[in-house]
Amino acid sequence: MAYRDEKLEEEKVFKDPVHRYVHVRDRVIWDLIATPEFQRLRRIKQLGTSYMTFHGAEHSRFNHSLGVYEIVRRIVSNFENRLNWKKEQRLLVLCAALLHDLGHGPYSHSFEKVFGLDHEEFTRKIILGNTGVNHVLRKVSASFPKKVAEVINKTYGDKLIVSIISSQIDADRMDYLQRDAYFTGVSYGHFDMERILRVMRPREDQVVIKESGMHAVEDYIMSRYQMYWQVYFHPVTRSAEVILTKILHRAKALYLSDYTFKLRPEHFISLFDGDITLDDYTRLDENITGFYFQSWLEEEDDILRDLCERFLNRRLFKYVEFNPLLHVKEMVELSKLFYEVGIDPEYYLIDDSSSDLPYDFYRPGEEEERLPIHLQLPNGKLKELSRQSDIVEAISGKKRTDHKLYFPQDILEALPDDSRQKQRIFEILFQ
Amino acid sequence: MAYRDEKLEEEKVFKDPVHRYVHVRDRVIWDLIATPEFQRLRRIKQLGTSYMTFHGAEHSRFNHSLGVYEIVRRIVSNFENRLNWKKEQRLLVLCAALLHDLGHGPYSHSFEKVFGLDHEEFTRKIILGNTGVNHVLRKVSASFPKKVAEVINKTYGDKLIVSIISSQIDADRMDYLQRDAYFTGVSYGHFDMERILRVMRPREDQVVIKESGMHAVEDYIMSRYQMYWQVYFHPVTRSAEVILTKILHRAKALYLSDYTFKLRPEHFISLFDGDITLDDYTRLDENITGFYFQSWLEEEDDILRDLCERFLNRRLFKYVEFNPLLHVKEMVELSKLFYEVGIDPEYYLIDDSSSDLPYDFYRPGEEEERLPIHLQLPNGKLKELSRQSDIVEAISGKKRTDHKLYFPQDILEALPDDSRQKQRIFEILFQ
Amino acid sequence: MAYRDEKLEEEKVFKDPVHRYVHVRDRVIWDLIATPEFQRLRRIKQLGTSYMTFHGAEHSRFNHSLGVYEIVRRIVSNFENRLNWKKEQRLLVLCAALLHDLGHGPYSHSFEKVFGLDHEEFTRKIILGNTGVNHVLRKVSASFPKKVAEVINKTYGDKLIVSIISSQIDADRMDYLQRDAYFTGVSYGHFDMERILRVMRPREDQVVIKESGMHAVEDYIMSRYQMYWQVYFHPVTRSAEVILTKILHRAKALYLSDYTFKLRPEHFISLFDGDITLDDYTRLDENITGFYFQSWLEEEDDILRDLCERFLNRRLFKYVEFNPLLHVKEMVELSKLFYEVGIDPEYYLIDDSSSDLPYDFYRPGEEEERLPIHLQLPNGKLKELSRQSDIVEAISGKKRTDHKLYFPQDILEALPDDSRQKQRIFEILFQ
Amino acid sequence: MAYRDEKLEEEKVFKDPVHRYVHVRDRVIWDLIATPEFQRLRRIKQLGTSYMTFHGAEHSRFNHSLGVYEIVRRIVSNFENRLNWKKEQRLLVLCAALLHDLGHGPYSHSFEKVFGLDHEEFTRKIILGNTGVNHVLRKVSASFPKKVAEVINKTYGDKLIVSIISSQIDADRMDYLQRDAYFTGVSYGHFDMERILRVMRPREDQVVIKESGMHAVEDYIMSRYQMYWQVYFHPVTRSAEVILTKILHRAKALYLSDYTFKLRPEHFISLFDGDITLDDYTRLDENITGFYFQSWLEEEDDILRDLCERFLNRRLFKYVEFNPLLHVKEMVELSKLFYEVGIDPEYYLIDDSSSDLPYDFYRPGEEEERLPIHLQLPNGKLKELSRQSDIVEAISGKKRTDHKLYFPQDILEALPDDSRQKQRIFEILFQ
Repeated sequence: MAYRDEKLEEEKVFKDPVHRYVHVRDRVIWDLIATPEFQRLRRIKQLGTSYMTFHGAEHSRFNHSLGVYEIVRRIVSNFENRLNWKKEQRLLVLCAALLHDLGHGPYSHSFEKVFGLDHEEFTRKIILGNTGVNHVLRKVSASFPKKVAEVINKTYGDKLIVSIISSQIDADRMDYLQRDAYFTGVSYGHFDMERILRVMRPREDQVVIKESGMHAVEDYIMSRYQMYWQVYFHPVTRSAEVILTKILHRAKALYLSDYTFKLRPEHFISLFDGDITLDDYTRLDENITGFYFQSWLEEEDDILRDLCERFLNRRLFKYVEFNPLLHVKEMVELSKLFYEVGIDPEYYLIDDSSSDLPYDFYRPGEEEERLPIHLQLPNGKLKELSRQSDIVEAISGKKRTDHKLYFPQDILEALPDDSRQKQRIFEILFQ
Repeated sequence: MAYRDEKLEEEKVFKDPVHRYVHVRDRVIWDLIATPEFQRLRRIKQLGTSYMTFHGAEHSRFNHSLGVYEIVRRIVSNFENRLNWKKEQRLLVLCAALLHDLGHGPYSHSFEKVFGLDHEEFTRKIILGNTGVNHVLRKVSASFPKKVAEVINKTYGDKLIVSIISSQIDADRMDYLQRDAYFTGVSYGHFDMERILRVMRPREDQVVIKESGMHAVEDYIMSRYQMYWQVYFHPVTRSAEVILTKILHRAKALYLSDYTFKLRPEHFISLFDGDITLDDYTRLDENITGFYFQSWLEEEDDILRDLCERFLNRRLFKYVEFNPLLHVKEMVELSKLFYEVGIDPEYYLIDDSSSDLPYDFYRPGEEEERLPIHLQLPNGKLKELSRQSDIVEAISGKKRTDHKLYFPQDILEALPDDSRQKQRIFEILFQ
Repeated sequence: MAYRDEKLEEEKVFKDPVHRYVHVRDRVIWDLIATPEFQRLRRIKQLGTSYMTFHGAEHSRFNHSLGVYEIVRRIVSNFENRLNWKKEQRLLVLCAALLHDLGHGPYSHSFEKVFGLDHEEFTRKIILGNTGVNHVLRKVSASFPKKVAEVINKTYGDKLIVSIISSQIDADRMDYLQRDAYFTGVSYGHFDMERILRVMRPREDQVVIKESGMHAVEDYIMSRYQMYWQVYFHPVTRSAEVILTKILHRAKALYLSDYTFKLRPEHFISLFDGDITLDDYTRLDENITGFYFQSWLEEEDDILRDLCERFLNRRLFKYVEFNPLLHVKEMVELSKLFYEVGIDPEYYLIDDSSSDLPYDFYRPGEEEERLPIHLQLPNGKLKELSRQSDIVEAISGKKRTDHKLYFPQDILEALPDDSRQKQRIFEILFQ
Repeated sequence: MAYRDEKLEEEKVFKDPVHRYVHVRDRVIWDLIATPEFQRLRRIKQLGTSYMTFHGAEHSRFNHSLGVYEIVRRIVSNFENRLNWKKEQRLLVLCAALLHDLGHGPYSHSFEKVFGLDHEEFTRKIILGNTGVNHVLRKVSASFPKKVAEVINKTYGDKLIVSIISSQIDADRMDYLQRDAYFTGVSYGHFDMERILRVMRPREDQVVIKESGMHAVEDYIMSRYQMYWQVYFHPVTRSAEVILTKILHRAKALYLSDYTFKLRPEHFISLFDGDITLDDYTRLDENITGFYFQSWLEEEDDILRDLCERFLNRRLFKYVEFNPLLHVKEMVELSKLFYEVGIDPEYYLIDDSSSDLPYDFYRPGEEEERLPIHLQLPNGKLKELSRQSDIVEAISGKKRTDHKLYFPQDILEALPDDSRQKQRIFEILFQ
């Protein structure tokens, strides 16, 4: 029997708090889960620094990846009567679902920003390189790894398959909204996924939604909007991320300036040098970064030491609403005042902004484009969601942005009360 | 105003998936949570290796500690009309609740076994030593740290306070059953805590339960029984723990035999030497152990390398039901056969047993004694639970033990099929 | 001790699936619940005909009334530190919460429409008349019943108290959204009530919301919007209601035309005559209406018999989208066609519309006005919600209306296929 | 196409709060649900008088019947790979599941006791008589109604099919435990049904459970035990039932003694005369009984009027623990004392007992016998559950009985304080 067709003797299940059970029958899926590259996702938190705001948010990308797989499994099972798929197509979409986040590293957002990495590129490299994952996928067929990578990369020819994995209402988003709501404990993030799965219909080039399911989709979109602002962009989470980013900045700057570390940061050297290999990359996880952050508590450099201590012990920066674009003059003055009192504004005065597009109709060519949601009317015609739903129309295409300025209030407060700079700094920040 | 009496300006809350919100009004509690020793609990999983069986079980001891505090806060608030406590008594029981697990290290069970440690001793040392926690507690009063340590140690004079923290139906157990059920996703672990809190009554020397709440308590006890056998003693979890224990054994043995590590395991040296200090201990967390386990993938020693690879990539040992006490001869023969085929049975043939006492009436002097549960009858008299409840009586004092034998099936299967030893090994294991 | 101050010896609780427990400590509340007028609410469904669409929606107004009381109890308990209320004020708002729906009869919406009744007027009459409820309330003070009636009527002087009971985010709405979601089983209707209660602040003339709670309020408003369209205005529910309304119409018309009923409908006579007394009214419940509907299955009149049979056995009318305002000509033609084939359009061709204002800023003097929601900014100033929230602004004041035309498809289909009228009727309906 | 094979064009779903969705694809099922006899179940509460104790317990037998059908649908769908069923077998078990409670009337327990009825007999009669249900079933085949009746009656030849509907772990019990827990809001009644369904295995003559699912079954059994004592046998519920039973007794006694009712109780005459027809029976529902109970508030007979007033307004009897078997003398004395003070003990001094067998191994020939639960060991052999599970063994076959004595405390308290009889009555009751 072809490996592609091999079924496990008995279905295996994972107990999952969000989807109750994750069901696995295909040997390929079972073998992929057992690879070191996939197991590594257990050591990378799904929500980065969010656990400092929501202490329950300690779940890993391993969790989420299984969840996306399970949702796609259910979608495909619902489609079985309506589609005439070959076996490989089914496996293709299941594997792409399982592996779509494989290239994430620890605190990806910060690492990507500081070191110019791209986790999607690493996903491709892991799938196509000399890895456990590639070894399993090749057993399906020589060209299979490439196809899986293309589906994840949205360049695969069969647009229906791509849209199951990546659209404005795909399995990825449906899993993370519910999962992150579950683990943080917030009451947002609920929507009737079972109903959405029931009203999904496969068309030649995309998944569409039966019109009768419109309200369930509205609910999903509002859910998403709330999760962004209540959880993902929470200012305390961003404070921890700002500090983390600055730790990486500082460590790199020290390395490039020939500073001598007490403990040479072997795992970071190729990152600092800008020539990280796949092997180096997959070795990185949150144990490794945590180890170095703790080691750096012993370093001579005051800034690195202080930032690491803040991150480990959650002594975060405070923040104020502040749009630096509107207040260039004050920002310059603040920087100057920080220098004058001996605080390096590069590491201690950080502006950060988040923005979110709750739902977007199609604007080809734009960054982060995801396919719009189409409703299938009773007559079989399609209609873009925001043209049918008042609620979605109302929020569609409206980008909301939030600007914050982060700083170490404890250090500022420790300045002498009669310091002119201190008074002026507080005046600007809390005017 | 005395520090003891200081309230936060506005109540702070933590969003908690189990108790919805954790409420903090006392400055002492807020300051304790901010100490490095308490924040460190974020880096230690509540359920050790259980996440390899239940992927959702990635929550930390930080989570659980907040939960126990919150339950005790609610108990104390219910008692306020019935008790005439001084302010310090209230703070005492809240602080003891928050800090009761402070001395846990990574994978405590394995570390304690291999290195002869005792996490309760470290809890005491952190509370009484030169630490952030001690510094905060001393602000209440000079004798306060000692009192908190005594409550946790069950030696404090006021037995009512001790029983809120440690009994067969205390806040510790009520939190972990619900929390572990929530994160694993199992359907056990539910009971009506709100009702139990409502029927708890403070007596001079213990908390008792109004008789009308008996069924809720029965439900809690059955819940506990199920969680032990379905989650805590799950054989896959124990397989991972067996491997972890053997990693520590091997690393220590190598160190003592003057093996040269490629990367000297600085964080383990004092453990290996048996003279670990408080500072060394609090530096240990799961980032540190994870870092070494990964580093040891590069070691020359085959056993250490293999065990670490198994642990990180979840290539666990298989198991069979096997009671070595009943099968001494077979165990000896198996060991011999393992040696003959070049597998060291000390590291690859491990018997492990778990046992549980679902509920126990009082047997003074026994190990792990916890106070029995007393019902308060309408006439005010007390009656021990198992004398009133048929269900509890039926399971009371009945110890259940489960014996398993763990081994690397993959290695055994890779032996040549015509190997006499292989055949005999499989014969014994799967007879 | 004044009756007003009497507490129950021990707090009583009701197990409630939505709020877990409903707590009662005041004797007044306990005694009110025991009155015949309040117990009568057990025999009136909270959601009228919705159980024909959502079979779980069989819960009564008794359920909801306890729920509103419990929410108000929690609000008042949260306010206790911030308010300097006299005892009577507390009781006043609790009693008003418990009794606010007391005047509802069976299927109020239909009965009110057909017989020109007003349930709010009956609430007042029950509170002020010679009833069990009035008897209990008078024990608090002679003027207390009048005050309770005024609070429910929104004419009471203390606007803060009124706004707890009636505003766009009052206890009434918070209970019914959650309760109706729970019993129908839909996944809408969830919002973080605990958080909303925490951010509610009493001001002199109204309850306001701390700005930090804005997102929880947004979530509540979206929840409300979804519940209206997914549950309350469900077209199948409205079909049952259309039939019910027509039963009442027909029975009244027969009575007025001196038709002789086999079983004289004693309980309806004063309704038909338009001179119903309080006693007659409180005797009405869904047992009584159900009894007559079943009896009328034996009546000679074809229309009454058919409509009752449809209602009891859920043989409902079908519907199409149809705005009679836009299609006056077709509506006239349809009526004519119905007459021609012997179907009385007055009873068998019914247009029905529902409309909803998801959130409204203040427009004094308009029907059904409820107070807008005000946010309290950190500086203490108030800001109307839709001026702060993009989402709410987007949907604010936008009335959505849905028009449907109901008809008995089974009867139409039974017409001979070559009937010109049948063909034309279907042409118009399904064009 | 044979009616048997007809599928609905599109699957229909009912939103169910317990199972999320109830799925219907077969035309037979859809048509059965639409029959008057099945719709009538909406007018009969699942839990009789329990709503007086748990106000949420207002759900109907319609709810439960759909739920049992849905569970059986899932079981059958899981079995499809393992069984070689003909189409009719599948429909047979689905129809039997849907219709198993069809013969229930209002407050069956009381009606059966007073009038010597048997709801199972009426289930058979409805299925086999000239009814809507029979008409639908006959379309499958002429012998189909008889087979459905036999499955429900446990006399059908295929014992596997019978055991899906009736055993100690059948779909009936699994639905009602979860459903009644949901609507009452109690925290008992939860178990992992999804897991139990996954470990069910069809054998020739019964459904068995894979041994690995033993703990889930233990949890189900404990759940059942708790629900019996916490919900089904709640003394307040039984108080309402005692009163209801006495209403029926009194009305019958009055009728037989030629008492002239103000409103002749037409619907009860054949019951009183002991010659009720199927038509009379299916006309009974809780609207009808409620109508008469209200009408009887106007009757001359003091006892009937008082009992009805108690039932409608929930002025229930109080109770004490009292085993009349052990206290015959006191019971006789109490009766005498009641007579002396003018209270008829036949209607106002009622002993009532409940008993439950949490789990039973097989004892053929006993009343209410249900099949024991068999575990299927890895070697394929079967083992009766209580021989494998310590917990189940501990409670197996242990009947627990609870005796209570009910009386109108309000009437007794209204007796003059110096009444010798009053003093003695209270002495006996509250000794």
